[in-house]
Amino acid sequence: MSRRRVLAGLSTVPLAAAAGFPELDRPAGPPHAPGGRRTTLLRGADLVLTMDPRVGDGPLGQWENGVDVLLRDGAVAAVGRGLTAPAGARVLDVRGRIVLPGFVDVHNHLWQSSIRGGCASEDVTGWLRDCERTALPRIDPRDMYRFVHLAALDVLRTGVTTVVDWVHPLPYDTSATYVRALDDSGLRFVYAATQSAANAHLIPRVKKDFLDPLPLASVQVAVHAGMPWLKELRTLHELARDLGVMVNSHVLESRHDRKDDPIRSLREVGAFGPDLLMNHAIHLTDAEIALTGEHDVRIAHCPLSNMRLASGICPLPAFHRHAVKAGLGHDGGTNDTSDMFNLMKAAVGLQRARHEDAGIHPTLPAVLRMATLGGAEAIGMADRIGSLTPGKRADVVVLDPGTLNFAPRTDWTSQIVLNGQPPNVSEVFIDGHLRVSGGTLPHVDVERVVREAELAARRVREA
Amino acid sequence: MSRRRVLAGLSTVPLAAAAGFPELDRPAGPPHAPGGRRTTLLRGADLVLTMDPRVGDGPLGQWENGVDVLLRDGAVAAVGRGLTAPAGARVLDVRGRIVLPGFVDVHNHLWQSSIRGGCASEDVTGWLRDCERTALPRIDPRDMYRFVHLAALDVLRTGVTTVVDWVHPLPYDTSATYVRALDDSGLRFVYAATQSAANAHLIPRVKKDFLDPLPLASVQVAVHAGMPWLKELRTLHELARDLGVMVNSHVLESRHDRKDDPIRSLREVGAFGPDLLMNHAIHLTDAEIALTGEHDVRIAHCPLSNMRLASGICPLPAFHRHAVKAGLGHDGGTNDTSDMFNLMKAAVGLQRARHEDAGIHPTLPAVLRMATLGGAEAIGMADRIGSLTPGKRADVVVLDPGTLNFAPRTDWTSQIVLNGQPPNVSEVFIDGHLRVSGGTLPHVDVERVVREAELAARRVREA
Repeated sequence: MSRRRVLAGLSTVPLAAAAGFPELDRPAGPPHAPGGRRTTLLRGADLVLTMDPRVGDGPLGQWENGVDVLLRDGAVAAVGRGLTAPAGARVLDVRGRIVLPGFVDVHNHLWQSSIRGGCASEDVTGWLRDCERTALPRIDPRDMYRFVHLAALDVLRTGVTTVVDWVHPLPYDTSATYVRALDDSGLRFVYAATQSAANAHLIPRVKKDFLDPLPLASVQVAVHAGMPWLKELRTLHELARDLGVMVNSHVLESRHDRKDDPIRSLREVGAFGPDLLMNHAIHLTDAEIALTGEHDVRIAHCPLSNMRLASGICPLPAFHRHAVKAGLGHDGGTNDTSDMFNLMKAAVGLQRARHEDAGIHPTLPAVLRMATLGGAEAIGMADRIGSLTPGKRADVVVLDPGTLNFAPRTDWTSQIVLNGQPPNVSEVFIDGHLRVSGGTLPHVDVERVVREAELAARRVREA
Repeated sequence: MSRRRVLAGLSTVPLAAAAGFPELDRPAGPPHAPGGRRTTLLRGADLVLTMDPRVGDGPLGQWENGVDVLLRDGAVAAVGRGLTAPAGARVLDVRGRIVLPGFVDVHNHLWQSSIRGGCASEDVTGWLRDCERTALPRIDPRDMYRFVHLAALDVLRTGVTTVVDWVHPLPYDTSATYVRALDDSGLRFVYAATQSAANAHLIPRVKKDFLDPLPLASVQVAVHAGMPWLKELRTLHELARDLGVMVNSHVLESRHDRKDDPIRSLREVGAFGPDLLMNHAIHLTDAEIALTGEHDVRIAHCPLSNMRLASGICPLPAFHRHAVKAGLGHDGGTNDTSDMFNLMKAAVGLQRARHEDAGIHPTLPAVLRMATLGGAEAIGMADRIGSLTPGKRADVVVLDPGTLNFAPRTDWTSQIVLNGQPPNVSEVFIDGHLRVSGGTLPHVDVERVVREAELAARRVREA
């Protein structure tokens, strides 16, 4: 029996025996029926933003009034008018609705739902010391599943279809349940795994055993940049190169990180290039920002986290002047809860308030792009996701603007950013699978997910 | 027939004849049944924050585990354990829930839902010129009802129980429908009316005809501070003094307002005291901030609006050092959509990011207080609202923390600010009336409200 078959039928197979997965009373993931209907005609949208200027009008690829989007076998097949539904297709009436690509969350730590709202008067240093580092070792594999599953469903609910999870050093069996929780949510995900140099061998093992078999999973190597950890950084960067995956590091999130000279360390080991994603990237010098652009290094901007943790204001307009590819990230427990609309609003508003300039980057179209195609570019996945370009995977969000917080229509493209709230997310498709329907999560027992996360949190507190 | 009786029974009485109200096909307000049940026992809350340090523990008046709150005849009667439900009372099981006072939104312009998302790349000057001032004259009395009603229900949905609406100069008949829409929403509201000096007589007339008869309405006089309008400012300030109500002005929202020297103008006419509410208050000098404290002038802080309109960052910590009473405001169309949780998060995060200090004012408890009792103090209503002090009006919010964005429990007081989203608002009571129930608006046909606002917006665009 191949590993792929084992994972496709995982609700009936004793996984512990088959793949090193511990036995797990899995609360409520969607069924991974291989024959599930993945062909859908979205019929009659009032507004489609493909985010691809070659497919539709203007920089956001806009279509208006009675537009169809055909998703076939998990891919975007066509955007246009009067499309025909293939035999057996699901047909969804999206008149009055907005259709756009799913959001890409380029930086998160989903396990941190376990410490939501914790250490709320601490900056990033105090929060790491008093909440983050004390909680992680107390979480056993089963409870890890519960925290990650809860948070994964929360990002899904706000229209995220791809999440990059920077995962702390975990034992092998906890990695198994972490991956399982991500996959059960139905999300497309990038598992950025780190380990000490001594345990670096766990990364390819986790990749081979748990991630490679999953069609929606991919891998990065997560690192700690900084001169004090240069040897470990070199080991992990070499591993990433061998695996052919990106390196993912927090860089200058706090002003105090300057003393470790993270940019220098990344350059010394040869990681400072297009295969590097730098999270936060707040306290860079002008010269380092210019270098970031020259070397095509990517950044993950996390404004809500930076506000919560008093980290500072990312010089996003300067990165933009140097044509740096940037996406948006919720950043796990530090941001506490998922709301892509709020995240976009914060990215715009923080720069506007700081610079007293309403034209400063990111503009509203720019932030919508960051949240979709820009994020996909930042993580090297723009060939597959981030826009409704025919041939790309069918990761699609349908928004219902007919609500008290969104109506009436003035300028829907701006209103997505300024008026949107998670309940406006009506449908979410990932790889053609319907994961949010009518604003709810089909096949998910949300009450059970919440209840089990509560019990898990109690165990962690009492451990 | 007294005016109060007319208004109490307004769904059957031809109002145009009775009170100068135009005939109105009112879409969907809650019934103002005078005999409606206003006695409710909230039984068994896991957490109650009264916001009154004399009622409960600590600065936020905290009670934990199995706490009852009794609302009797529209007032808070008691907070405690094992309370008895009076005969005929509604009993609501709030085990697992959080109970706190309703939010006070101290600055809004509800009619601006008509231009939501509009002029999205303009600062406050451009937005006023190209969106705000072009829309207002095109709105007839009936459409005004629709925009205000939609926005009022939107703020209600996010847990606001009292809103201060700074209302632009309106014709008498449009004032009538504006007031009607506010009252139909069930909100407690402060109608801050302005007019030119020549039309100042309309303010007491609107007050007498439309506002005085309504138990949940009160009045302020809205003004434009600045030396160029000193004469008008003097006239309106005298009017406010005669009426015994507060003066409400935008002050130094934009750096460009400095040239009009608004603080000087307010001092010259004698308005600079505890009966003055200054909205935004961003670009004050240190000396002006100190004066604000010395004279006990109040401020309305609107961080999301200030971010959207590139107005700047309010020196809120400096106001706090001078013990200035401050509340939070959504600020109408400029903030585009209502989310008190996002507003609190932004107030905290904006200062933290700017100062790189997680201990800076407002702390999380401070921002919760600003959103409730602090707001009530800022508008001189703390004797009636803002805390669950027995004897105050029964304006109460119940939150459901058992959701994907909020659970698990770590520190609920912090989580209200950091994790809360509008759908966590499960019940809202205003003056004892149940206005939100199970997260929905009973007696409101939301689809109709949205549809009619859409039609109204189309008429305004085409006018």
